[in-house]
Order: sequence, then C-alpha cells, then structure tokens
Amino acid sequence: MGLIIKNGNIITSKNEYIADILVEDEKIVAIGKDLDIKGHEVVDANDKFVFPGGVDEHVHYNSFNSLGYETSHAALAGGTTTVGDFVVQPVGVGLKDSIINYKKDYLDEKATPDYVLHGIIMDPSEETVADLVNMPSVGVSSVKLFMAYKGMPYYVSDEWIFKALCTGKKAGVTIMVHAENADIIDVLTKKLIAEGKTEPKYFGDSRPVLSEAEATSRAIYMAEIANAPLFVVHVTNQKTAEIIRDAYNKGLSTYGETCTHYLMLNDENLAKPNFEGAKYVCNPPLRPQSDVNFMWEAINKGWLTSVGSDHCAIMGGFAEGKRKGINDFSKIPPGSPGVQDRLNMIWTYGVETGKITRQKFVEVCCTTPAKVCGIYPQKGEIAVGTDADIVVFDPNYRGTVKLEDSLSSSDYCTYDGFEIKGIAEKVYLRGKLVAQNGKFVGELGKGQQVMSKPYAYCYDKFKE
Amino acid sequence: MGLIIKNGNIITSKNEYIADILVEDEKIVAIGKDLDIKGHEVVDANDKFVFPGGVDEHVHYNSFNSLGYETSHAALAGGTTTVGDFVVQPVGVGLKDSIINYKKDYLDEKATPDYVLHGIIMDPSEETVADLVNMPSVGVSSVKLFMAYKGMPYYVSDEWIFKALCTGKKAGVTIMVHAENADIIDVLTKKLIAEGKTEPKYFGDSRPVLSEAEATSRAIYMAEIANAPLFVVHVTNQKTAEIIRDAYNKGLSTYGETCTHYLMLNDENLAKPNFEGAKYVCNPPLRPQSDVNFMWEAINKGWLTSVGSDHCAIMGGFAEGKRKGINDFSKIPPGSPGVQDRLNMIWTYGVETGKITRQKFVEVCCTTPAKVCGIYPQKGEIAVGTDADIVVFDPNYRGTVKLEDSLSSSDYCTYDGFEIKGIAEKVYLRGKLVAQNGKFVGELGKGQQVMSKPYAYCYDKFKE
Amino acid sequence: MGLIIKNGNIITSKNEYIADILVEDEKIVAIGKDLDIKGHEVVDANDKFVFPGGVDEHVHYNSFNSLGYETSHAALAGGTTTVGDFVVQPVGVGLKDSIINYKKDYLDEKATPDYVLHGIIMDPSEETVADLVNMPSVGVSSVKLFMAYKGMPYYVSDEWIFKALCTGKKAGVTIMVHAENADIIDVLTKKLIAEGKTEPKYFGDSRPVLSEAEATSRAIYMAEIANAPLFVVHVTNQKTAEIIRDAYNKGLSTYGETCTHYLMLNDENLAKPNFEGAKYVCNPPLRPQSDVNFMWEAINKGWLTSVGSDHCAIMGGFAEGKRKGINDFSKIPPGSPGVQDRLNMIWTYGVETGKITRQKFVEVCCTTPAKVCGIYPQKGEIAVGTDADIVVFDPNYRGTVKLEDSLSSSDYCTYDGFEIKGIAEKVYLRGKLVAQNGKFVGELGKGQQVMSKPYAYCYDKFKE
Amino acid sequence: MGLIIKNGNIITSKNEYIADILVEDEKIVAIGKDLDIKGHEVVDANDKFVFPGGVDEHVHYNSFNSLGYETSHAALAGGTTTVGDFVVQPVGVGLKDSIINYKKDYLDEKATPDYVLHGIIMDPSEETVADLVNMPSVGVSSVKLFMAYKGMPYYVSDEWIFKALCTGKKAGVTIMVHAENADIIDVLTKKLIAEGKTEPKYFGDSRPVLSEAEATSRAIYMAEIANAPLFVVHVTNQKTAEIIRDAYNKGLSTYGETCTHYLMLNDENLAKPNFEGAKYVCNPPLRPQSDVNFMWEAINKGWLTSVGSDHCAIMGGFAEGKRKGINDFSKIPPGSPGVQDRLNMIWTYGVETGKITRQKFVEVCCTTPAKVCGIYPQKGEIAVGTDADIVVFDPNYRGTVKLEDSLSSSDYCTYDGFEIKGIAEKVYLRGKLVAQNGKFVGELGKGQQVMSKPYAYCYDKFKE
Repeated sequence: MGLIIKNGNIITSKNEYIADILVEDEKIVAIGKDLDIKGHEVVDANDKFVFPGGVDEHVHYNSFNSLGYETSHAALAGGTTTVGDFVVQPVGVGLKDSIINYKKDYLDEKATPDYVLHGIIMDPSEETVADLVNMPSVGVSSVKLFMAYKGMPYYVSDEWIFKALCTGKKAGVTIMVHAENADIIDVLTKKLIAEGKTEPKYFGDSRPVLSEAEATSRAIYMAEIANAPLFVVHVTNQKTAEIIRDAYNKGLSTYGETCTHYLMLNDENLAKPNFEGAKYVCNPPLRPQSDVNFMWEAINKGWLTSVGSDHCAIMGGFAEGKRKGINDFSKIPPGSPGVQDRLNMIWTYGVETGKITRQKFVEVCCTTPAKVCGIYPQKGEIAVGTDADIVVFDPNYRGTVKLEDSLSSSDYCTYDGFEIKGIAEKVYLRGKLVAQNGKFVGELGKGQQVMSKPYAYCYDKFKE
Repeated sequence: MGLIIKNGNIITSKNEYIADILVEDEKIVAIGKDLDIKGHEVVDANDKFVFPGGVDEHVHYNSFNSLGYETSHAALAGGTTTVGDFVVQPVGVGLKDSIINYKKDYLDEKATPDYVLHGIIMDPSEETVADLVNMPSVGVSSVKLFMAYKGMPYYVSDEWIFKALCTGKKAGVTIMVHAENADIIDVLTKKLIAEGKTEPKYFGDSRPVLSEAEATSRAIYMAEIANAPLFVVHVTNQKTAEIIRDAYNKGLSTYGETCTHYLMLNDENLAKPNFEGAKYVCNPPLRPQSDVNFMWEAINKGWLTSVGSDHCAIMGGFAEGKRKGINDFSKIPPGSPGVQDRLNMIWTYGVETGKITRQKFVEVCCTTPAKVCGIYPQKGEIAVGTDADIVVFDPNYRGTVKLEDSLSSSDYCTYDGFEIKGIAEKVYLRGKLVAQNGKFVGELGKGQQVMSKPYAYCYDKFKE
Repeated sequence: MGLIIKNGNIITSKNEYIADILVEDEKIVAIGKDLDIKGHEVVDANDKFVFPGGVDEHVHYNSFNSLGYETSHAALAGGTTTVGDFVVQPVGVGLKDSIINYKKDYLDEKATPDYVLHGIIMDPSEETVADLVNMPSVGVSSVKLFMAYKGMPYYVSDEWIFKALCTGKKAGVTIMVHAENADIIDVLTKKLIAEGKTEPKYFGDSRPVLSEAEATSRAIYMAEIANAPLFVVHVTNQKTAEIIRDAYNKGLSTYGETCTHYLMLNDENLAKPNFEGAKYVCNPPLRPQSDVNFMWEAINKGWLTSVGSDHCAIMGGFAEGKRKGINDFSKIPPGSPGVQDRLNMIWTYGVETGKITRQKFVEVCCTTPAKVCGIYPQKGEIAVGTDADIVVFDPNYRGTVKLEDSLSSSDYCTYDGFEIKGIAEKVYLRGKLVAQNGKFVGELGKGQQVMSKPYAYCYDKFKE
Repeated sequence: MGLIIKNGNIITSKNEYIADILVEDEKIVAIGKDLDIKGHEVVDANDKFVFPGGVDEHVHYNSFNSLGYETSHAALAGGTTTVGDFVVQPVGVGLKDSIINYKKDYLDEKATPDYVLHGIIMDPSEETVADLVNMPSVGVSSVKLFMAYKGMPYYVSDEWIFKALCTGKKAGVTIMVHAENADIIDVLTKKLIAEGKTEPKYFGDSRPVLSEAEATSRAIYMAEIANAPLFVVHVTNQKTAEIIRDAYNKGLSTYGETCTHYLMLNDENLAKPNFEGAKYVCNPPLRPQSDVNFMWEAINKGWLTSVGSDHCAIMGGFAEGKRKGINDFSKIPPGSPGVQDRLNMIWTYGVETGKITRQKFVEVCCTTPAKVCGIYPQKGEIAVGTDADIVVFDPNYRGTVKLEDSLSSSDYCTYDGFEIKGIAEKVYLRGKLVAQNGKFVGELGKGQQVMSKPYAYCYDKFKE
C-alpha cells in the first residue's frame, strides 16, 4: 500500500509547483496532477508546502562529550530526515576500522534518522592517511581534520593536512577542515586566563576571527598545491567566507558551510550573566552581528554552500557538563544542541523575513547538503526515484521554541524562546510518518546508513 | 488523448533521474515510474535524455536588417521551443504601442515557436521612459537600450539609461543594455577607415574589449545610483564578465548573458580571406581565444547567467547583405544566424568535452533564460504543471552542421562544418511534436506569446 | 649680496637635518655647516623648520567667476611661492593662443607669486586637440578637460577626451580631467529642484560619489586604450581614490590629487543654516567624514600624489556672488578661496595631529606638485641649484584663521576660526623676502612664469 | 684636512643636481656651488654620478656555513659601505648576549665596511622573546625568525612568531621573517628524494611559490592580531609581493625586500648541468622569469622596499661546500656570494635598461635599506650631516663580472660573465677612500658598528 500526498505546493531548490506525490516502497514513484490510486493512503497537503526532508550535514553523536543516538529522533521531529555524523577515530585504530566499529557500537538499531558518515582523523600517521582510499568501501567519502586544539592528540599539523589532501584525492574523498590557528588560540587563551579573564565572554577573544581566517587561508594554499578540493566546516565570519569565495572565483574547488547558530546568535550571547554564556560556547565562537548579517548574504549568494547544525548536546548539559569551565572558559566543553531547530530557524528567520527565498531554503538545508555528503539525489530532492523523505509544512503555524519540546536530552535549549513561524506538520522518512507537528511519532532505531559516493559535490568542478 | 514519454533520463538544472512523463492538454501533468494510461501515445525514451525545450532569450526577427518570423521554425528544429525577441520601437511610436503593432504585424499566425517579447528604446524621451511602466500590461518586462552606435537615433545617452533604470524599477521592468562606448568606437572606426584598414579583420580593433568593459562599468554605476537591477546582454570577454561578477558580489543586482558565438568562435574568424570574415561580424565582435575560454568558465561558475544566440539572419545574407561593407567594415550589417545551432553547440562543445555538466547545460540554455525572461516555470522546466515543451535527445548521434539543413534562409551557416554529438530526436511544443532529428515536422505559425511577469529573475535578490 | 639662512632644521620630502643655506642670485648655491660669507645677510633659523616654498598645483584666477591676480599675493602670505593656474580657452580661440593672450592680459606684471600654467579645453574640436602638441612651446605641459557640466560649451564628451589623450601623448602633455558624470548630475539636479529641494545642502545629493567614481573610471579606460597617462584633479572620496590606486597598481600611469577642503571639511558644512552652506559649494562637493578620513590615508600612502587648494575666490563673494543661487543650489557659483591657508591647514591638521610626517607634508605640498607641474627641481625642493623659494617656519606659533588676515579679497574665509599651529615666519621667493608672519611684505606683480617641461611626473613610469 | 668632491651629478632618492660636496671629520659638512677651501683634497667628479654609499640590509657572515668578515672588504669594492648582518643566536645563549659575543668574536677589528646588526632567534623560549626589549641597548632593532626548516632547532612555530611580534613591539624592535611553510617543504622534499629526483633542478619544486605565499600570509595575520609591523625578507615572487602590497594597502604596516638574484636570475639556473645548478641554490629558490619581471615592477612601484644581496659565501665554495648535496639537493648548503655585485647589477640591468630611474636605484639600494635598518640619515643619504659614505660613479665604464675580481673568497661568482655598465670609480667610507675602480684600496678591519634606532621604518606608519 502506498501513499499519496495531494495538492501540496512542492518546493525544490529551483522551482515550486502544485502537484500530488505518489510514494511506494519507500520511494517517490510519481509526481503529477490528480494521481489517484485505490487503496493508497491519501494525505491532503492543500495550502501546505511540501519539501524534501532536511539533510543536516554536520552533527555529533557519541563523540567527545556529546550524547548519543538515543536522542537522534530529535532530528526527525524538526523535519531533518538524514544526518551527517562525524566519526571519531580512536588513537591506535585504523581509520576505516573506526567507521566499522562505530557503526556496530553506536548506530545499528540505535539511529533513528538515516545517516551518512564522515571520518575524523584523530591519530595522524602514514597508515591513517593511506587508509583514506579505503573509506568509500564503507560508505564514507569525506574526512575532517582539526587544525585547532594545540597539544591534543587530534591536533593535525600542516604536514598531515597536506598529505591527507594529496591522498584523499586519489579516491575522491573530500578533505574537510576545522580551520582555526591552534598556536594563536593557545597563546591568547593562556594570556587571558593568566589575567584572570576566565568568564565565558572572554572565550571569543581567545579565538579571534583572524585565527579562523588564517587557518582557512592556509588550508586553501595546501589544497591548491595538492590540487585537491577542500571543504571548510562551520565558517563564522565575513573575512573567512570571503577567502573561500575568492579562492573559488580564482578557480579552486574550495567550499564552506556555515551553521544555524552563526546565522541566529551573536557574541553578546557569550556575555550573558551567571555563566549562562557557557551555553553558547562552541568552536569557532559566535561573532559580532555584522558577521551574522554577512553569513545570510553568504548563503544567499552561494558563497557558502549550506547550513549545518553542528549539533552537539554535551553530556551533563549546562548543569554539569558546561559547569566544568566555571573557573576557566577554556575548559567549557564546546557545543550545543541544534539538530531539531535548524529548519525552523532558517525558515522563520530567513524565508519569513525575506532574507532568502523558499528555493534557497531547500537548497541550503536539503539539496546541497545531500550533494556535499555524496548522497544526492537519493536524499535532499523531491523527484521520481528519490527516497520518500518528505516534509509537509504548515506555514501558518505560530509558536515558540521550548525546552519541554526538545528531544535532545539537554537541560537547556539553544534557541529557547525564539518565535517560530510554520511547522513540519508531517515528516516522512522513506515513506513512513515519523513526526507530526514537532512530535516524534515513529519507531526508534530504524535509521539506515546512506552510502556516500566518492567524487561528490566538492569534486564537481574539479579538473586535474 | 495524451502523450507518455517513457523511461527517459530526465535532466533538470539540478538533477537527473529516469521516469515517465505524462502530457495532457499541452501541460506536463505527471512524472513517475510506470505511468501507463490507455489510449495515450507512448514514446520510448529509453537511453535518451529528456530535457526542457530550449529558451533562447536573445533573438532578432523583423528588425534592423534581419529576416522575419517566416524562418522561426529553425528554432524548433534545433530544440528551442521559446524565443525571446527584441521589438524595435519605431521613432515616433509609443513604447507600448510598438509591442502591440509588432505583434499584429509580424507575430500573430506567423511565429512558429512560442515567444516572449523584450522592448527596445529607439526613441528616447520622457514619454518613452514613462511608458516603461505600461509594458507588463502587454506581457513585456524587459527593455533594452543601446549604449553603442553614436549618431544613430537609437543611441541612448547616459541621461536616458539612468532615467530608464529609475522608472523601470517602479514596475518591475528589467533594463537591459547593449554596453559599448559609442564615442571610442566612433573615433577608432574613423581612424581605421582613414588608414585604409577597411577589411573585416579590423572590425575587432574598432570595438576593443575595454570599450565594452567601460560601458558595462558605467551602466552598473548608474544602476547602483538608481538602486535598480541591470542585465547586460551579449557579454564577450573576461574583463567585462569580471566587472559584472564583482558588482554582483558587492551586493548589486547585476547580471549578464553570453552568446553561443562567444563560446564557439574567436577573432581569427574575422580574419578569414575573401571577405569571409564578414560572416562573423556581430556586435560586440568576436574576441581572442583566452576570452572564449573565460566565457565557458563564466557560465560554469554562474558569473554569467545564460547563453543566448543573438540570432540575426541578415537580409540578403552574405552575398548581398554583408557585401554592403565590402569597402568599409563599419558598413557590414552585424549579426549571424544561430538559433538553430545553439543547443547543439553547447551540448557538443560544452557537455561532451566536460566543460560543463548536463545540469549546467539545462540551466544556461533553458531554465535561467526562462527566469530572466519572466516566464519560468511555465517554460524552461520539466515539472508537473509546466508547458509540455520537451526535447528527447539522442546523445549517440554523430553528425555535422550543414547549410542545407539550415532553416534560417541565409546563404551561409555560422557553424558550418562543426561536428555535433547528439541530436534533438523529438521536440515537443506544448505537447505537439514539431521537430524530429533536426527536421521541422510541425505546423507553421502556431507559436503563442508567453506573457512575461514583471519583477523577474534580475529582481530576485533585489532589495529596496 | 647674498643670504644665509642659518641652523634651520631643513625638511625635504625624504629627510631632515640641520644646516645653513646659502642663497645667491635667486638660487640656493650651498647647503652646509658653518657657511659664513662676509657681507651676506644672515637669518637665524635656529629652532625653526626650513622647507621649500609651497607649490599649489591647482588655483583659479581670472576665470569663470573668480577674482584675478591682483589678489595672488595671498599665496605668498601663506608660504606658497608658486601657483599652477588653469587658463580657460575662450570659444573660438586657439588653445596655444589662449595661453599667450592670458599671459599678456592677466599675468605680466600682475602676478605676484611665480606661476606655471595649465590649459583648459573649452572649445573641443580637431583644431583644439591638434594644438595640444604646441603647448610645451609656451611652457604648458598639462591640459584639463571637463567631463561634468552638461549643456555647457566646455562640457567635453568622451570623443574629445579620448582624442586629447591620444594627441597629448605625442608631445608629453599630461591630460587632466575634472571627472564627474554630467548626465547623472543633470538628471538628479533637475529632480531635486523640481521637488523644491533648492538649498545648498541638496547640492551634495545632486553630485553623488558614484558620479565622480564613474567618470574617473571611464577616463581611466580611455587612457588605457590610448596608452596615455592621466591626472585626475580634486579627488574627493574613497571609491574614486581606490579606482585610481587600483589602476596604478595594475600598471597604468594614473594619478590624482586631492584638495585642502576635502581633507578639512565635510558635507555637514553644506547644511549650515541661513544659506551659509553656499560658501562651501565647490565641485565636486564636500563628502562625509569617512571620505575625509580616507583622503588623509590616501595622501599618506601615496595613492593620491598631492594637495592643491583649488583656490577660486568668487567675484562678489558670499554677499553677491554666492547669493545668485539663493533659490537654486545649482546656480551657486562653485569655488572658495584657499591658497593662503593650504600649508597652515595641512601642517596643523596633518603634521601636528600625527596623521602625516613632516616629510610627507613637504612631499604633498611642495615636491610632488612641482613634479606634476613639470617644474621640478627648479621648484619644490631645497637643494643646490634650485630656486631659492624658502619657508622659515616657526612651529611654536599658535593662532587662528581670521578673515581680516585674508588677502584673497573675499568677504568670507573658508577656514575662518580654525586654530593653527605654526606659521611661515619668513617666506622667500627667489631669495627675496616676500612675507613675514602671515603678512605680505614684498612687491606686487613680480611673479614669473615657470616653464613646464613636457613628459613630467605622470609620464615617469610610462612605457609605450 | 678635508675633501671636496667637485661638480658631480649628485643623485638622491628624489632628485639630482650638480654641486660640490665638502667632507670634514668623516661627515658631509656642505654641499654647494664652487666650494673651495684651501688645503682640502679636491676630487673632480665632472661627468660622474655621485650617490650615497650602498647599504646592503641583508648579508650573512660567520654564520651557518658562511665565510666571515675577513672577506667583507668585497662590499666596499662594489660600492656598498654598510652591511646589515644577521647574528645567529647559539642555542642556550641569551639573545642580547649573542650580539655582544658575536661582536667580540667576529667584528671588532675584523669588519671592514661599517655594519648594523640584526638578531636571529635560534632558540625560541620565553626568555629569548623577553630579551627582545633589550636589543636596542646593543644597537639592534630588528630580529629575524625562520618559519622554514622543519625539524631544525631554529625552526620557529607560530607560537613564537606571534609572541615575538607582541613583545618586539613594546621596544620598537622590528620582527623579520623568513617566510616559507616548513611542513609543505618537508613533505615535498622527501617525496622528490624518494622518487630519485635528487638534482639541483628539483630544489625549486620542493619549495613552491605557494609555500612562500602561505607563510607570508600567515605571518601577516599574526602581525595583524598582534598589531605589530612586519618585515618579510627575500621575497621572490609575484603572489607573495602582492600579499604584502595588499596588506599594506589595507592599512597594515607590512613590508618586504627582494634580493639581487631574484631580479637577475631565474629557475633555469638551477637546471644547469654538471651540478652547476647547485651554485644557485638559495632559500627561497630562484623563480620563473615572470616572477623576475614582477620583482622589478614591485621595487619600481614601491610594493617592495629595497634590494638586499642575501650574501652568503659558503665555506668550501662549490668544490667542497655545495658538493655536500651531490646526491640530495636538500643537503646543498643554500646561499651564494653577492655583496660585491649588487650595485653593479641593479644599475646595469635596472637603470641602464630603463626599468628604474636613477632615483629609484638610490632609493632601493641605499636610502630605504638605511631606513629599514634604523640608521638613516646617518647612512644612505647625501646631505649635510650624514656620514661621508660616497660613491663617485663612472657611468661610461664597460666591463664584465669576473671571478678573479671577486673578493668574497669563493671559488665561483654568482654573476660571472654578466656585462656591467658603469663602475664605482671611487668609494669613500666616512671620508676615507676605500675602493677604486672595483679594487679595494683601504685598510682592513676598520669598520664600525652603526647603532640602529628602534621604531625604525616599519614603524613609520604604525599607529597603536
């Protein structure tokens, strides 16, 4: 038995039109006028928008200090049907094996949305780099390296980034970087702490815009020498976005994403009293409002490709987790929950304010993330043959983000109190209804891995 | 009775997938797997590409020295189902009236493809400029002005361009400019002719890249002061494309197209012996190969939006028409036929060479031109509800452009002898088969006007 | 009998050091320690600065509505020993003849400072342009053209600017442009007046920054095609200065000056009540403070070469002259007196505030203007062999600009009430004391023409 | 008894004029016409140019593998009267002490030209960085750090560069960087050697332009965060020079020099057969001719401040020293002699070819180097009060660089066989004749330290 979503205003990244969508066997099998098949469930989407299930290319579960997949249904409640999760390589474990182990330990029968996996190099070595070419065999075609975090095992020097770029390219694996200059941050952090400037509001001062711009610029130089594509995660500011744009315009295959919080929040959040600022500590830090404004322009103009949530619900939440940094901002575990609110925020504060069109919303929240992750058009598109991941969206809903509605198991909500306009009235994952009006109504642990194809989006315009 | 195009590989500007297309009443009414309706004609598109009928935003019929709509079926033979024609305002006639008259005189029951109309200001005055706001009522939302052609009645000074920008904006009418500096061209032309340099090869010297770049830059300054969008037609070179790109990046609503010949031919064509160079005289002139290469990059990166043909089949052809300039290159009527070959050229020399993807081909030849013309998604898209303008394309065909296959009634063919890969096996206009394997098989004079909506593409990112 | 200026701190555009200067026969004949020659007059310059007499490359006398050379001793009172005056070509008079006539009519035995002459094309024609090559024979190597002023006889279209650039180059004559887009200004002016916005404060709105930037950009394009150097007079704002800088960096021989008032005053002056704003009406208009700040950076970094006064004391002054525009800002005669205050303003508000060094002061007020005018090193330098135009400057003086001290015969003073630090204690013109502590003490009408050498500064880096 | 140099054409960085120079007590005491003092030695400089003794801001003696001060009279033979030498800090020795020791060990009574000293941090630590503020007390106001050379003790990580910038600024000490990315070079070098590409011609491939551009960009970011000036030594290529220029234009106090060999030689020298290429191995490597051309433009336009020789005569010369790298280009000791030929090369191939003016020659070879080193106007200027370091230059001499004329004690000559036009006919160091027609005629070991003043040239436009 199938499903027919009738008369919805279908939004794609390029177009919109009213039609019916016919779903059978987890796939969209037809789109048309007056599709009527006996015995199929019919959902009336009249006056509703219908768009592809969200693809959040940047989430963290079961890693560092974050909570795990038992909370991953939060994504579906917010309209996101696929998450791109970063798999941490334990020191001493092969890069490919880290994926196999992680899947067994944390994902099988535990993940609720569908997922695509990215690797993270935490133990840089010749063996690890060589293993990059084996990643597509386990469905992974993107691997992140950390330029920040001096003195940590997962700090990756230029040597390994350069080698990873050279090797990744041989197998179509996209190298992603967390781009901040570790040395500058280390010097500034120690100086601030030594001066007694320990509160969250100094966190931003310890990681200036220029330290992000510098590391981004450096990674691009290395990509240019290696003649390899590059993806810069969580870009926060104008300078850095311009560096990526200008490199792309010059002919390099250089791309970057931003995240929900860099579009919604600014550095004033870090200055909230009573240690409340700690809730908003994430890496890189929130920036001044002028940068926030530029981030909207950057996604609108296509200078940044997409919007991830960088979801990371810290174990112990604010009360215990964040509290570790009560006397030293550098000890605050960075990260905050966001996977559930991403679509709501971008729609309400982007589309409803006129900053971006509905097409652009679909592009940056669904379609391009799927392309970046190498899972398009299976995910991120409304077309015949794609997975029936569908959001029926009621634009007339009016409400507010509340902690009590959050499924992320944190004791605070990053966007608490923000008004929202519109809601994912019905969310389908491979044709199954999994959420309704912000509530999860599906079955836990039914998420599947989506195999990422190598030579994905960042390789598109790439010519040897 | 309807039509089902089965199992084609459907290409859109963003995606591709295999499905059936169901056409009824001139529209696409469904896209799906296994669409089978008794009594409908079935066309097997297995192993074929299926994409939207081409939209050629830039053609000239019945104006200046060009042939008329009796030759317009050439467009359909080449897979282009909609043309954007420029309507010349006769001196002394109102701008809106010029459209009404033109339609009556030249289009009704004469045009074979569908058409959308642009105005051209030939008689700049307060009345003409004021009439801009009435253009949408006759289905026109874009009007071109000539910055070139010193001493001609249709030369438009900065005063009128600036006023047109200010007024057009009030009604969502897009101002288009032919951007070349009339004075510089005039001085250089007279100097060259005085020096006895009268052959076609000097035509390029008389209209240097910098005269185009200058006028483009100037138009953008005026658009910025007027806070209005701007569309630059037939951009030929890197410098000018970069000016448009940089203005856009800076935040202005500035766009430009290029044309088939600036992607396919270079200035060496102008130097062909025996006055053959005259065939390739068009405004602005063909440029060096380095600019040709940049034009491909410009459409690939999105710095220019689209590819028009600037089709203009000169009355009298080469033998009599072009011959007028045998002793003076400046008297050669500019223009050459191109509407029939546009899709073939861009596919063969763009897609087949790997310069652009199939998606980009559809974007620059079909989808974005429709957006620029204000007729999207009715035209330029394969989706439920759009006009059933469909090309079934056989990528395995191999052939050569030949004058004998040309329907443009010229005695020469701009791309004569160029190899082509792939052919529009079947072309449907509003569901009717009008061409097959490069031959016109439809009925003449059945083209309809497509009403252009104001506030079209160039206004998209426009904020007052 | 000669003159010895003893123990002054000599400032050049590159250096400073304490030494004596020996003057004989109008020239500096030695610089050294302990120069003592019996019978020579000795001036003690201990604790004083000694620098070259100012060269003001941009003044207007006896032209348009300006007062004449009977007021030119004002320059000397302010430390400026040489002025660069613009000679207006009467319609119907040859360009070279206009210089000969002007000299006879207005200069011989009337000018008090030394002077170098620039031409102005007011009657563009083939004859006028051809006459450019004859200008060096009458000591003129720079000629200005007006891009602004639509409808006036001296409006010069692109045709003539381009031709002037081509021809001027043959004889090493520098083309200077007043760069504002005449059409844009005309449209905006009429619109503002029609809306009843007639007060001086709307003058700035009628001539926006972008109209200056556009014309500058256009002139540079023409210079690039002509492969000729270009000098842009009275640059007022960041955008325009950046255009000049970027063109220079790209390899073009493009230069520009700014003027005292663009460094000292901003657009708020135009908004002064009781028509007082009219005093500050000059072309191009005063700009916002951000542009004023940038002008200081531009001279400090060398993006603009020099600082002229654009001195123009309107006949009838404020009471009768400026009053002509009481009901229409566009009828206010543009210009204001400034030749007397230039050095005081740049020293007090540049050197004393730390914005520029003493070397830079000499460079932009004395040395480079002399180079631009083709009269270096005869003027603008303290070295053996140069004209003994010397300022002995007391940096400890404190005072205020007062109308009663002005020698420009105007009824208002542009910088009235501005504090000044330092004063030209003694000013020597060719070895003769002509001013003391701001008072003229010389003889009227003793100024001489300085013959300008062709292929001057703007040709320096010029390569055919 | 003094010295009078009569009737020479004196060239300064801004001007030229004919006059006599009077020297007494090691200083210039007067410049003038007809200076005649009984008993003074008179040198006829009629038809000769007279300019300041050269200042070579970048030489290496007694460090790494270089020969020592016993060869330093080579500088004087070539017209360079002051050298700026880099003093290596031995590991475990304080930075200030390293200067004191070096002076005692290698300079006192051994140096023949005058010298100014730069420090080099070879043992980065908190103590070393803290010692920066003590450097002016021993006459040193510039300290270099190496970003290249991974794995060597003198490799300096971002941490120490950033700290050095922060601390140096407190005392007006200029931080200089050798900017190449150590990691990239290390990876590429090992890869090339592993592939058997061991010859000198692969040396350039191991240190690409982008590794220099990257490190330069990174150093500038750190200087911007530290709000400190920066000087980049031995810039070799267009990209890097543009980065420095653009940063300066943006408002940063960022400067760079180039060196003689980057103006005279290109990467083809590295490919010379029979291991001859090793002679031209220096860091960074020689670049393609297009970069060489840009270096001339960069000094002409002022984008790079000056030209040093980076003189480094390797112990053992070509036969034994360079030979160490016969099987591995990375083991070739980098460096080549150049102090003797610098002025000849820049004059002959810059001034005589019309690439630069005589003024620019003096600026980049004498005046600005002295400013950069903090020893202006004592050195690098012809003016009353400066040290009487004077070159009387015969522009009519024609000759060839020959090894037999070299005083650098090397077995090869970098510019062997290059034609030269003009020669330093007489060279005076503090009024003493020390060289004549390319031969050293003075006394060895009479050079003196010139104390460098802090807050030198790079701090000029610096505002906290």
